[in-house]
This record gives sequence, C-alpha cells and structure tokens, in this order.
Amino acid sequence: MIDLRSDTVTRPTEAMRAAMAAAEVGDDVYGEDPTVQALEERVAGLFGHEAALFTPTGSLANVLAVAAVVAPGQEVLCEARAHIARAELGAHGAVSGLTMRTWSHPRGQVDLAALADLFAPDLGPYFVPTAALSVENTHNFAGGAVLPLADLQALRAFADARSVAVHLDGARIWNAHVATATPLASYGAVADVLAVCLSKGLGAPAGSLLLGSREVVTEARVRRKRLGAGMRQVGILAAAGLHALDHHVERLADDHAHARLLAEAVGADPAGVDTNIVAFDVDDAPGFVARAGEAGVLVGAVGARTIRLVTHLDVTRADAERAARTLASL
Amino acid sequence: MIDLRSDTVTRPTEAMRAAMAAAEVGDDVYGEDPTVQALEERVAGLFGHEAALFTPTGSLANVLAVAAVVAPGQEVLCEARAHIARAELGAHGAVSGLTMRTWSHPRGQVDLAALADLFAPDLGPYFVPTAALSVENTHNFAGGAVLPLADLQALRAFADARSVAVHLDGARIWNAHVATATPLASYGAVADVLAVCLSKGLGAPAGSLLLGSREVVTEARVRRKRLGAGMRQVGILAAAGLHALDHHVERLADDHAHARLLAEAVGADPAGVDTNIVAFDVDDAPGFVARAGEAGVLVGAVGARTIRLVTHLDVTRADAERAARTLASL
Amino acid sequence: MIDLRSDTVTRPTEAMRAAMAAAEVGDDVYGEDPTVQALEERVAGLFGHEAALFTPTGSLANVLAVAAVVAPGQEVLCEARAHIARAELGAHGAVSGLTMRTWSHPRGQVDLAALADLFAPDLGPYFVPTAALSVENTHNFAGGAVLPLADLQALRAFADARSVAVHLDGARIWNAHVATATPLASYGAVADVLAVCLSKGLGAPAGSLLLGSREVVTEARVRRKRLGAGMRQVGILAAAGLHALDHHVERLADDHAHARLLAEAVGADPAGVDTNIVAFDVDDAPGFVARAGEAGVLVGAVGARTIRLVTHLDVTRADAERAARTLASL
Amino acid sequence: MIDLRSDTVTRPTEAMRAAMAAAEVGDDVYGEDPTVQALEERVAGLFGHEAALFTPTGSLANVLAVAAVVAPGQEVLCEARAHIARAELGAHGAVSGLTMRTWSHPRGQVDLAALADLFAPDLGPYFVPTAALSVENTHNFAGGAVLPLADLQALRAFADARSVAVHLDGARIWNAHVATATPLASYGAVADVLAVCLSKGLGAPAGSLLLGSREVVTEARVRRKRLGAGMRQVGILAAAGLHALDHHVERLADDHAHARLLAEAVGADPAGVDTNIVAFDVDDAPGFVARAGEAGVLVGAVGARTIRLVTHLDVTRADAERAARTLASL
Repeated sequence: MIDLRSDTVTRPTEAMRAAMAAAEVGDDVYGEDPTVQALEERVAGLFGHEAALFTPTGSLANVLAVAAVVAPGQEVLCEARAHIARAELGAHGAVSGLTMRTWSHPRGQVDLAALADLFAPDLGPYFVPTAALSVENTHNFAGGAVLPLADLQALRAFADARSVAVHLDGARIWNAHVATATPLASYGAVADVLAVCLSKGLGAPAGSLLLGSREVVTEARVRRKRLGAGMRQVGILAAAGLHALDHHVERLADDHAHARLLAEAVGADPAGVDTNIVAFDVDDAPGFVARAGEAGVLVGAVGARTIRLVTHLDVTRADAERAARTLASL
Repeated sequence: MIDLRSDTVTRPTEAMRAAMAAAEVGDDVYGEDPTVQALEERVAGLFGHEAALFTPTGSLANVLAVAAVVAPGQEVLCEARAHIARAELGAHGAVSGLTMRTWSHPRGQVDLAALADLFAPDLGPYFVPTAALSVENTHNFAGGAVLPLADLQALRAFADARSVAVHLDGARIWNAHVATATPLASYGAVADVLAVCLSKGLGAPAGSLLLGSREVVTEARVRRKRLGAGMRQVGILAAAGLHALDHHVERLADDHAHARLLAEAVGADPAGVDTNIVAFDVDDAPGFVARAGEAGVLVGAVGARTIRLVTHLDVTRADAERAARTLASL
Repeated sequence: MIDLRSDTVTRPTEAMRAAMAAAEVGDDVYGEDPTVQALEERVAGLFGHEAALFTPTGSLANVLAVAAVVAPGQEVLCEARAHIARAELGAHGAVSGLTMRTWSHPRGQVDLAALADLFAPDLGPYFVPTAALSVENTHNFAGGAVLPLADLQALRAFADARSVAVHLDGARIWNAHVATATPLASYGAVADVLAVCLSKGLGAPAGSLLLGSREVVTEARVRRKRLGAGMRQVGILAAAGLHALDHHVERLADDHAHARLLAEAVGADPAGVDTNIVAFDVDDAPGFVARAGEAGVLVGAVGARTIRLVTHLDVTRADAERAARTLASL
Repeated sequence: MIDLRSDTVTRPTEAMRAAMAAAEVGDDVYGEDPTVQALEERVAGLFGHEAALFTPTGSLANVLAVAAVVAPGQEVLCEARAHIARAELGAHGAVSGLTMRTWSHPRGQVDLAALADLFAPDLGPYFVPTAALSVENTHNFAGGAVLPLADLQALRAFADARSVAVHLDGARIWNAHVATATPLASYGAVADVLAVCLSKGLGAPAGSLLLGSREVVTEARVRRKRLGAGMRQVGILAAAGLHALDHHVERLADDHAHARLLAEAVGADPAGVDTNIVAFDVDDAPGFVARAGEAGVLVGAVGARTIRLVTHLDVTRADAERAARTLASL
C-alpha cells in the first residue's frame, strides 16, 4: 500500500528512533528538558526569532501563535482555505474566542487589494478591529502552493503601516524553503509569530514549534499548560525533531520531484505543483478514494470533488512511479 | 443639532411613551408578561415563524440566532462587512465559539458562486463544516442595500441542497419591506432563524426579536438567561415595539426619500441608496465628522475614509433639507 | 392570587410608570442618555464608588463585576449557595471562563477560617490563584440572611492582607441596609466591585448596576456590549430606578415585617428571618407548591424539600395576613 | 541531587527507551497507530471500561473526562483541593465552561453529608444542576491519601440515586491499587469516566488515558483534536506506557516504603502517608525549599507553609535514606 493521503503518515526511520532512544530528557513543565531546549533554541535561531515553544501538534502551535497576537473581540484575516480557517476544528473560535474574515485566492496567495478592502481599523468598542494577518506557506489546501517571499515582504509592510501583526502558518515552510532556496530567516523576518511543524515533511512522529518574542513564548507556555499540552520528558520527541532538521530538510526536493511526476500522471497542471502536494478534481471524490485504495494507493478527499496527493519521506521514487501508473489508469 | 449618525438614536414619541406607561406586564423570566408574549406572537406571525424571543438588543438577537444553528467547531458564511462579522465586538467567536468565513461584495449581496467556492461539506472531525449561511437585509455597512427576494430564494435553495441553515440579520428588514413591497412573510420563508430590530428605524427605545422554530426559541431562552438578558417586567419595552409596528413601519418611506435627498447633496450615487443609509467617501473621515458636527450635523465614520448618514424617525423633511445644505457646503 | 415566589414579580406603580413615560433619554451606547447617567452617578455616589454601569439584569451585573476582578485561570471563592454559584446558569464558567471554590454556611455567612483554608496564593502558572472573594448580602438562598458589617470589614482586611479583590453581590443590599440601618457607603467601602439590583425589592421592572472604579466600569461597558446588553434609550428603565430610590427603599421595612408574620404562620424560626425571605422545609416541595397555588398563594421551591416565600412591594399587609392563614392551613 | 518535587520528574529507563525505539506506529489521527490502540484497549480492559483515549497529559485527560459528563451551565462537585479545582490552570472553566462547587476534607475524602448538602437537583433553566461528582484517588494535594473503595462505592450509590455521573481522577490510581490491593476493575466500576496517568509513578515520559463508554471516547477524540492534542505516530509514547504497565506497577510499593521513611525523618505523622507523597508544614515553605536544594534535595512548596515530598522510580532506597538524613537536619 502506498500512502499518499498526507505527509503526516511518515514513520520514524531507524536513525530517528535511535536518536529518540538516546535523548537526554528532563521535566519540561519545569523547563528542565535539555533536548527540548536545544530544539527550541535551534529552531528559533534558524528563523531569527527570540524564542520558541514545543507543542504536540501543528494545530496547537497555530492556536497559541494566533492567540498570542489576536484577543477575543479582535479578528485575524486569512485566505479562505487557510488551515486555521478550514481545519483545526474551529479552535480559534471555540478555544480562543477570536473571529476571522477571509479573502479567496485559488492558489492561497496574498492579495493586498483584498486585504486593503477587508482591513478594519480600530474605531472603538463597537467594531471588531483587525489585529493580525495570517498566511500559510506552503498553502496546504491550495495544493502546497508557495507564497513568494516578495509577497510576504509586501504583506509585512502592509501590516507595519497599520500596526498589526503577521502570523505565518509554516507547517510546511521547509518545503517552501527547499523549493525556492529562500533562507528560513527571511521567512522569520516577515512574521511576528510562526508555527512550524516537525511531523509533516520532516518525518518526526509528532511535534511543532511556535516562534516569537520571548514575551509571546512565555505567555504561550502558560496557555499550552492550560490546554493540557504541557508534557514532561518530551525530549524524546524533540530528539526526533533535531534529527529531522539534520537529515530530512534537503531531501524534501525528492518529494517535490515525486509530486510533479504524479501530477503529470493524473493530468494535473504541473504549474500548480510547487512542492509535495497535488490537488486535482474528479467527478466523485469519495468514489475515487475508494477505487484508488482498492488498487493499492491511499489518497484523500479534501472537498466533494477534489483529491489530494501528498508525497513524503515514506514514498520512494519507485513508489511514486507505481502510484502514478495506478492513478493514471483510474 | 441634526443627528444622522444612526437610526438607533431615535427617541420615543409621546404616543409610544403613553403605550409603554399603560403596558400590562408580568415577570417574563417566568414567561408571564402578556405584552411581551403579544409582541413575540405578533412578530412571529408577521414572518410566518413558529415562535419569537424578545431580546434587549439586535446584537443579542443575532448572537442567539446564529448560535441556534451553528455549534462550536462549525462555521457560518457571510459577506465580509456583515454586522455579525464587523460589529458585535466579536461575540460570535468570543461568546459562541463559532468561526466564520466571508465573501466580499461592494453592495453586500448574495454571491452564489462565491458561496459555492466557500461551502465546506462535513468531511469528518478534522475540517470545519459549514452549518449556516448568513445574510443581512438591508445591509448596514453596504449602505443600507436591499437584498432582492429572488436572491434570497436562490440562497434558500442553495442551503436546502446542502442541508444547512439560513440566518437573516433583519435589523432593518422593515426598510427592505417598505422599499420593495416584499411581504415580511416572504423574508421569513427564506430563513431558519431571523433577528429583527425594533430600536432602529421603528423608533422603539430598545428591543429586538429572534424568530425561529419553537425548539430554537426554547433553547435560545435559556441562552438568553445565561447571557444575563432575562429581564422581568419588560413588557414596558415590548409595548413600544407593538406601538412601532402599528405606527412606524409605513413611514420608513419618508426616511428613504430623505436619504435620497441627502445622497444628491453629497454627490453620492443615488443608485446606491436603496433605503435610509447613505455612505460616501471623503479624504479624511474623522475630520469630516468633526467639521459637520461644528456645522450642526452629526454624522458617523464607518471606515478611515467612509462617512455614513442615516435617516430616521427624528429627522423631519426640513431637517433633511437643512442637513443636505450643510453637508453639501463642506 | 398572592405571589410570594420572588420579589422580582413586582409590577411598576402608577407613579413609577409616569416617571418612565417622562424620562429624558438618549442613545446610551453612545453614552448620551442623561437619565441613565443620572442613575449611574447617583448609585455610585450612594456607595462611595467612582462609577457605575446600568445592566438589564442582576445576573449580568454579577457576571461583569466578577469578570472585572477574576480572569480565566483564576478563581473566586464564595459560599456554596451564593447566587453566582447556584444560579445565573453557570455564566461565570460558561461566559467568563472562571473557576470557583466554595465554603458552606447554613446562613451564607463569611467564614474566615474556611477562607483561610481555601485561599490559594499565586504559586506560578500551574495552580489556580485566588483572585477574589465574593459574598452576597442579603443572601438569597440562605433565606435573605444579612451579613453583619463587622464580618464584611473583617473579610475586607483578609482580602487586603492577600492583595485580592472583594465582590459583593448586593442584589438585595437595600434590604440589608434597611434591616440593620447600615449606611450604603459602609457596604460600598468593603467591596472593590458591587452589583445592586433595582428590580427586586425596589420594584423597578428591570435593571441593575455594577459599581467599581472608573477603569472597571469602562472595561465592563465593552463587555456589556459584547454580551449584547448595550441598549439604546434605556433611560426609560433607568427612570424607574431613580423613582424606586426615592420611594421604595425605606418601605422595605414593611416587607420584612410581613416576612416575620409569614414565618410565624409556617412555623419557621423567626430568628432565621432577617429580611423579606422565609425559607422552610416540607416533605415534598413540588407538592406543597401545587397545593398552595390551588389555595391562591404562589410560592417557590428552591430545593427538593425547601420552600421559599418572598415579600415585596405588591404584597400588602392584608395579603400577607391572608397568605399566612392559607399556608398555616396546609 | 535527589529530586523529590514530583513523581513527574522520572526519566525513562533503558528498557523503556528500547520499547519506545521498537514501537510499531501509524498515524493516530487516522486511528492507525497499533501501539496506541493496544495501550487503549489494555487500559480500558484493566478498569473494565469500554474504551480509552490516549492524551499527552493527565490534565487533558481530566479536562476531556469531566467535559464528557458536565456541560456548560452544569456543575461538578469536588473536594476543595482536588487537582481539577486547584491545578490545571482553571481549564475546566476557561476551556470547558463548567462551574464547580467544593467541600473541604483534610484528607481529600468523600463526605456524603457535605455532598448531600451541596447536591443541586435540576430545577429548570435558572439554577445550575449538579451533573457529576469528582474524586481523586490518590489525592495529590491531600498528601497522596487513598480513598477507600467502600467510600467510592457509597459515592457511586449516591450518584446513581440522583442520576449523575462520577469522575475519578486516577492520576495516581496505581498507587492506591498497590497500597490497598484493590483491583483496578473495582475502581473502574465506581466511575463513569476516569483519567489515569502513565507519567507519574509509572515513569513514562508522557501520556495519560481517559476511560469511559465508547460514546464518551468517540466524542472526546474530537475534542482532543480541537484542543490541539491529536498527535500522529504517538505509539512511541504509548510503548512507554505499555512497558510501564508490565514493569512499574508493583514496584510502587517501594516508593510507598520510601515515603514512610521520609515522613519519619521530617516528623510527619506516618498515619498520613498512605502512598508516595509526604506533606508537612514548615514556617516558611519557600525558604525551606531553598535550603533543601542547597543541601542536595529538591522539594516542592504546595502552599505558603506546606512542603511536599514525592517518591518515585528515580529515587532508590539509598537516595531516600540520604534525603531523610538531609531533611531531618534542616
């Protein structure tokens, strides 16, 4: 079975397992886990941020990151298919009490004209003021689309001119980095708060990080505990993240090549495959999912008529070729 | 001073005061206020709904109405400048824990293509499913624009095809009714839940109603109490609403005529003035507000460059003419 | 029918109705209702507080008052049958996100030993720190019991020594004031935030006030709007409150006399009747409620075996005597 | 350094690390992690419950367990120093929107008389009905006190007679089990929902489980995801739990012996040391913590004057004896 449903399905490699088994650990609720600290410092450094916080999931990293810059009664603006809007089970409303408004772009891109139209200044305690702008890079439900750095820099300037924050959902920022050779620090520079994930393309079993100022991270640590996510000797998982940073970043280029190969096979526009995700429309997504599964390829439906394929660490070149043949035949 | 900031500023007439003073009342928390009951039954009947619930404000009627059809973890879709998204201090997130996504239309209209793109089916506990579509008629921040009945009926069909609810924010539905001669029951027929307001164009000092099924209203009554809005002998206020229904509906045509008169004076496109609201852009909205105030006309800023004028019960023909001259001179 | 279920059932007198009909009003969302302002200033002054905020209900005044001094993640300590714990539909958790811990006292009194045991210092982001102590005077579910001023002053000292706030639920503070001749300002001096009610013993149709510092009230005004309770020309209701302050405070002594009369009739300990509430146990509270109703006296069950009688403005001496005879016979 | 602050500080043994490194894993968000499933089934079976759900922390297991049986607007009753009331950063209010009322017992025990006094029947939408009773066994802040099974069975009968649920916070239920030889299934039989922890006495690096009916667990799985705790290949951590169940349960008897040894050394009443926790009062808890730390023994303050010692997997007999000598000398 070749699993193309998501890059979350990767299993840790033997080397990653060994790194976890050897991890030096402590009680992270007390701030005493050296491996967690090493990971937090390293990732903060990569993006040029002051501090970082380990979280069990990317969803929680996003929830804490957005809540750090948007209070109840304020809003965040994002693209309509952003993960924070479409997924995460509505946590930004249900848990954080925020509101959102959205613009729509077929590739999930920044649209400054739409943002200028949506932006709400703080006109006093009646309206909902915009407190943050959120972008996702790469954009999952827009087919792994990359947001060009220049657009992010223009967004940063737009935000600065209005004194609001920028949140970057970087669950797959590593893919954008590898696909475009943009330095991670350049992405870090455009955002006040970032969420980056270790358990998608990087192949760790679990774990994400929230990045921001020391103040943001200190407060997020308290919220993380309130939300029941303050684990103890979690250096076990952090060790997988450190290993992934050493060994699984550059190889994302392979995933991207495999995705292009799949796109061609299913007749998807290759111009729409920036990274490791291929989205294409079929008449009946659930039916297609079932037939592909019977043929040995697991794929996912992300809409009534939209199929998503995701390449990752556990899909070899040979796997990708076989899946391409199978899907082409359906 | 002529006050064109909002139609919420109207003061009760002598006749309305007399009606309030004479109201038969009881403890409405116990369901024993006959005037409240009469109002609830009458308004439910006007719109062809099973039941109604009196609320102190239009904001609360909207909060209870939307929460009746959208649970935490679900979303409501609405136009980007809808009152539920832009105003109400973010209560739908902060109090009800919902999320929203939005489409944008310069006149706040239904856009089925945009809705089809936004609509999220229930794909299991990961995504946020769309539970309701919300429209506002007339649309306040789109300048009192009317939503044509045919569009609302198409929206109803769209919702039925997807088994989701329709919420109609009818704070100014009376204006739409008078401007287009559409029966109130036709509006009622397109929505599962409505909020209608007595304290805007109708001139009551306070009060709105939520309309829906008996089940929705029973549950909303509990939520109303939890939110601290279960008043006692509130038939005093309900009496003003009954009086307004008798005397202040048809006269909204005057407000609409006055608005057109003002629009011409400030050079706003008369095609954009469907009812009692005139919106137009200036270079510096706060500055304009200040200068108009000095000249005896209170106006409001609803954006950094947008001025809003609202006509109402306390603006006579002579007032409107004088305000038109004043604003034209600025 | 003599209604002894609650002092919330009173209907406005003719004089109060006239005061409402004549009230000068404005849009209170804009801070422009002179009658609301007069009421807020007057009540703040009576209790020696900086500022006050009109709310539609006593529940909302309590919700806003407690939320002003206790944040999510912090706790308030109160007696186990306090209105904020037992009633208000759990709003302090559901709306404000606070937690509570409780001590139990048969008369709802301050118990400093229990408080010392419960009090939780702020030991860092793991424990829930105590942020406020809350007392209710008179204590509704403890049978209208008065809390002696000396006890409240000791509570104040206890709170000061620990740098936490005191909340006083004064829904029936007027009854305590009249029963003990304690100046209202003495009650005001022991609390950081108070909620006082106009629609119970004072006989207004609706309305309460939150009292506190100017800062507390400014923030509570925003929360009031978010909770959908920012009414417009609500001076209509405020006028009833001003009238009640002029005419319905001292007469509460009559209600207290009527309550003692009823207590004797039902064999309740007169020492347990401090003000206008009589609580007594029967074998089957719902059954007793039904039989009393058939005999022309409405009473309430506040527990499976506890009946509550409440005297008020609409119960004359003759009513009280007749009710006493009826209940004695059951 | 001997660390007696908490049994959460244990580091995984070599054997446990090997078990983690060898764990078969899958994507648990998709319900495909065989090791997680094995752990969930095994623990559910041990307690005789239908189903179980892995959570990153004991706090989250409690939050999900209580929320499964208590809705916003309802309350849970618990002892005043219960972990759900005193710790977890107020999540039951802040996240779940519940309220609590409490009774106080120096040993954290069930007090049926207090419960009978507190219990609130459902009297309609005004009062807050009691929906669940919660107990903690062993009771952390009552010094690791055991709740006798007979008391729990009486509580179960009390709850059944009133049709409310029982929540058992069994973070240290293993200690109670070993100390009293009570079968785990007997504990399971008294509770509708349980939370049990792998990362305290059992020595796993992280992880807890919520136990209940299949319906409860299905719904809790969705809430877990919404709270950002749906990890992917988390069988790595589950493997540590399975290992702990095999190897670290019976040895808790050693921790209990060490605790008695420490209690004698610090002059604490040995009758108050049921399991692995010793609580005793000093004049100045923070000062004592500092001095003990300088002498090589880490201890914790759980109150302004209360010190807590906790024995665990990483404290050998020799460690305990040395710590006893050190603390005795302070």
